[in-house]
Amino acid sequence: MKGFYKLSELDAQQARRLAERALALRAGAPARRFPQLALGLLFMSPSLRTQASMQRAAAKMALQLIQLQSGGNGVWNLELSDGAVMDGTTVEHVREAAAVLGRFVDMLAIRAFAGGQSLEEDWADPVLRAFQQFAGVPIVNLESAQWHPCQALADWSTLDLFRVPRRAKFVLTWAWHPKPLPQAVPNSTLTMAAQRGMDVVVLRPDGYDLRPEVLAEARALAAASGGTVTVTSNRKEALEGASVVYAKSWGSLVHYGDAAAEGAFRSGLRDWCVSNAWFSGAAPDAKFMHCLPVRRNVVVRDEVLDGPRSIVIDQAENRLHAQMALLEELAASVESARRGSAPEAVHTASL
Amino acid sequence: MKGFYKLSELDAQQARRLAERALALRAGAPARRFPQLALGLLFMSPSLRTQASMQRAAAKMALQLIQLQSGGNGVWNLELSDGAVMDGTTVEHVREAAAVLGRFVDMLAIRAFAGGQSLEEDWADPVLRAFQQFAGVPIVNLESAQWHPCQALADWSTLDLFRVPRRAKFVLTWAWHPKPLPQAVPNSTLTMAAQRGMDVVVLRPDGYDLRPEVLAEARALAAASGGTVTVTSNRKEALEGASVVYAKSWGSLVHYGDAAAEGAFRSGLRDWCVSNAWFSGAAPDAKFMHCLPVRRNVVVRDEVLDGPRSIVIDQAENRLHAQMALLEELAASVESARRGSAPEAVHTASL
Amino acid sequence: MKGFYKLSELDAQQARRLAERALALRAGAPARRFPQLALGLLFMSPSLRTQASMQRAAAKMALQLIQLQSGGNGVWNLELSDGAVMDGTTVEHVREAAAVLGRFVDMLAIRAFAGGQSLEEDWADPVLRAFQQFAGVPIVNLESAQWHPCQALADWSTLDLFRVPRRAKFVLTWAWHPKPLPQAVPNSTLTMAAQRGMDVVVLRPDGYDLRPEVLAEARALAAASGGTVTVTSNRKEALEGASVVYAKSWGSLVHYGDAAAEGAFRSGLRDWCVSNAWFSGAAPDAKFMHCLPVRRNVVVRDEVLDGPRSIVIDQAENRLHAQMALLEELAASVESARRGSAPEAVHTASL
Repeated sequence: MKGFYKLSELDAQQARRLAERALALRAGAPARRFPQLALGLLFMSPSLRTQASMQRAAAKMALQLIQLQSGGNGVWNLELSDGAVMDGTTVEHVREAAAVLGRFVDMLAIRAFAGGQSLEEDWADPVLRAFQQFAGVPIVNLESAQWHPCQALADWSTLDLFRVPRRAKFVLTWAWHPKPLPQAVPNSTLTMAAQRGMDVVVLRPDGYDLRPEVLAEARALAAASGGTVTVTSNRKEALEGASVVYAKSWGSLVHYGDAAAEGAFRSGLRDWCVSNAWFSGAAPDAKFMHCLPVRRNVVVRDEVLDGPRSIVIDQAENRLHAQMALLEELAASVESARRGSAPEAVHTASL
Repeated sequence: MKGFYKLSELDAQQARRLAERALALRAGAPARRFPQLALGLLFMSPSLRTQASMQRAAAKMALQLIQLQSGGNGVWNLELSDGAVMDGTTVEHVREAAAVLGRFVDMLAIRAFAGGQSLEEDWADPVLRAFQQFAGVPIVNLESAQWHPCQALADWSTLDLFRVPRRAKFVLTWAWHPKPLPQAVPNSTLTMAAQRGMDVVVLRPDGYDLRPEVLAEARALAAASGGTVTVTSNRKEALEGASVVYAKSWGSLVHYGDAAAEGAFRSGLRDWCVSNAWFSGAAPDAKFMHCLPVRRNVVVRDEVLDGPRSIVIDQAENRLHAQMALLEELAASVESARRGSAPEAVHTASL
Repeated sequence: MKGFYKLSELDAQQARRLAERALALRAGAPARRFPQLALGLLFMSPSLRTQASMQRAAAKMALQLIQLQSGGNGVWNLELSDGAVMDGTTVEHVREAAAVLGRFVDMLAIRAFAGGQSLEEDWADPVLRAFQQFAGVPIVNLESAQWHPCQALADWSTLDLFRVPRRAKFVLTWAWHPKPLPQAVPNSTLTMAAQRGMDVVVLRPDGYDLRPEVLAEARALAAASGGTVTVTSNRKEALEGASVVYAKSWGSLVHYGDAAAEGAFRSGLRDWCVSNAWFSGAAPDAKFMHCLPVRRNVVVRDEVLDGPRSIVIDQAENRLHAQMALLEELAASVESARRGSAPEAVHTASL
């Protein structure tokens, strides 16, 4: 394992085994310990679950933990562009920052949200890609401009925890929100459910498609795993027989970087707030999922979040277990590489 | 022990034993170690002593430590109101934040100062109360809108350290300050000294009473412990024979939330700055205490802080020892609860 | 060892031994472990390398780590002036902050950059000096207004790592930068190279002299170690035969605290950006060094940083090893002092 940028870098069998290992850890299996290795955390965007769960994972695994944030008296403002004449506000180039941090830690986990200004720049995922290129150590993506693979792995294990069948209907629904949010989570949710072999429906108003590259990847993953991917704006059809309703808001690709136009574009969509009524045609034991943080009574109503369908807290807890399963693999690979043996063989065995 | 919201949750005997344990730890007794348990720290307000002493306490006790702050790239801005339609500036409801953190740690310690806008809202102590309600793990109050119990416990142990007699005269005096500060510390100091059985005098200018509920609680605690509580604006009488002068500034209840009116109200009170002259009628070995941080030559003059009466540095050091004594109790309760035995029996024995 | 304020507190032999120990640690020697001791980190200025390397050093040495930052929900805004009437924006006096932190940790490492407003105030190095005076524990300087000794020690070990001869020509060159930066690094670089016994040339435009006190100290150190110190604005002569070109920008003493005047003063100096052409007359294997962060194509061109002469990443890595060598000494001194034996004898032996 060379790092963890997005879930589909793993094949379905590897992902399934990591999800299983997460649930074993949740059930009390002792985590593998790596007291000689250091894990770096670099947060360039806010976090509650990710910070707390990564800190706890490191403690349980006896990893040495190095923690950095940008802003304030944290790390310097980073330049990302090749060839930049740095006479403005950026103080350090990511080439140096990544290479130096790679000397201080054995694995580096990074959060850097989308800038939200340029569609193509965000699609290039510049911060994560630069650290992958220059750090010289495995990089773990804690949510980048495009992907949130730790969330996706935790979500997979959550579906297993609640015994949601592989071919069940999984509805990823857009929801209203006062701001256009990044697509990292919906991209990750869609491809995760497709790779798990589910019948995935993306329910969204017209104009809120995910990137065609992501849809194409999801369809390929579904085909390989025996699932399907459908996109619709028909709420009734989408929710009919659903086993899971996974809500998430995201910004449209049409007005990317233009907050005013986007605000007008979504002004009539406030009824895209998940309520109990949404479940009228769903499977009797249908579950509600969201990655959190969630805006109550905007994205989803209290009645759903506080009701029996919501599994969002267990879903969040699984961040810890899924990340430990992942870090076990990654740390074992790092140790194997140092001993000169084949890391792939080892991390398969380590499951 | 279910948590630690305010000192008077403990009876006087329990508080006395914790203060004794704090002094034993100060004298070099080894702290109990809990390497399987995780302590979360969440700071929503600034801190020097509390951050440093909690970090050191966790290290000495081999607790796994999870550290979070609000602001910047820290945790999301929290919503506290039930039923809120979260289309404004709050991103996550405390219901989710608390429940999720409760899955990642075994004990959660939180600092969240008074907002200072609404008297009734601050009296309800919304952040601490919400975490108590929703986290599912014991909550330690690191200074909330109304109480600062770790300070109070450290202060109790400091009085013991300097062999201040139980029935000595303890003067809590208001002091001038450019801003109206919260009442968490004076509330805690007053009730601590009352519960210790001291003759407590609250010395303050007219208009600077503490909440009647707090005074009533202090009087009940004093009655049970054999002490007294008096309120006066007569400085000479208050200080006559005092063994301890504990200074603290706080805002008036009269102009709560109105900084301009409060500023005018206190404009003539700059002579409420403790000087050596204040000790002219005090006991010969009278001590000066303050919780820190303190504004020099505003709340207290250099001559006092740098003189032999000041015990503020030992008082601050005792934060570490008192918190360790507390965390030993709490961690033992958590471990006992997991084993299914009676936590109360265990944490009494652990002293 | 009583602390580490600037490198020249050590004699040349001590510094050489620490640099050697750093390289032994880099080569894999196990670090000494001090699980009973606590190291405090206080950052009042931004950092990437220093934070990460100090955290990793503490983990490798099993030191208990207490981490604090100023700003946001970190430590309170500190007052430095004796006798101040603190009715403004400072909340806590450094006398209390230092004394309290000294009760919570065994060693305290602090970063506090120059304020850049008053030459004499910055020369007095008020934050570091106050902590030295009031903390009661050894203070490690992580870059103060005047010195950056951990960088200097790492640089010394880097020169050893690349087998740069003791009497080689070492050029410290000024470089253009949009802002007037502090002199802590050039002061430290100059005196380090002088103490190592090198032929040091300070290459800078007229008006960019370092403080005369620093130059005088450097000349005395060079004399004792068999080296030389020269100051020039003649780039060709300076670079002729150079084994090392160490670039750094700093503000002029002439316009200290006057950003507009300084900006005009340096407006014609943008060609002070190190390029490959600067090495035309240098030694064939001449190296390029910089403390980082560095502004690309402002201080130095990509062609140099990405070329074979640049050793900036190894130089940064050596921060970790040099700081571990230093902390081993310091921690051994602390432990010895507690046992009542002579710390100097012990920390010599510990090398």
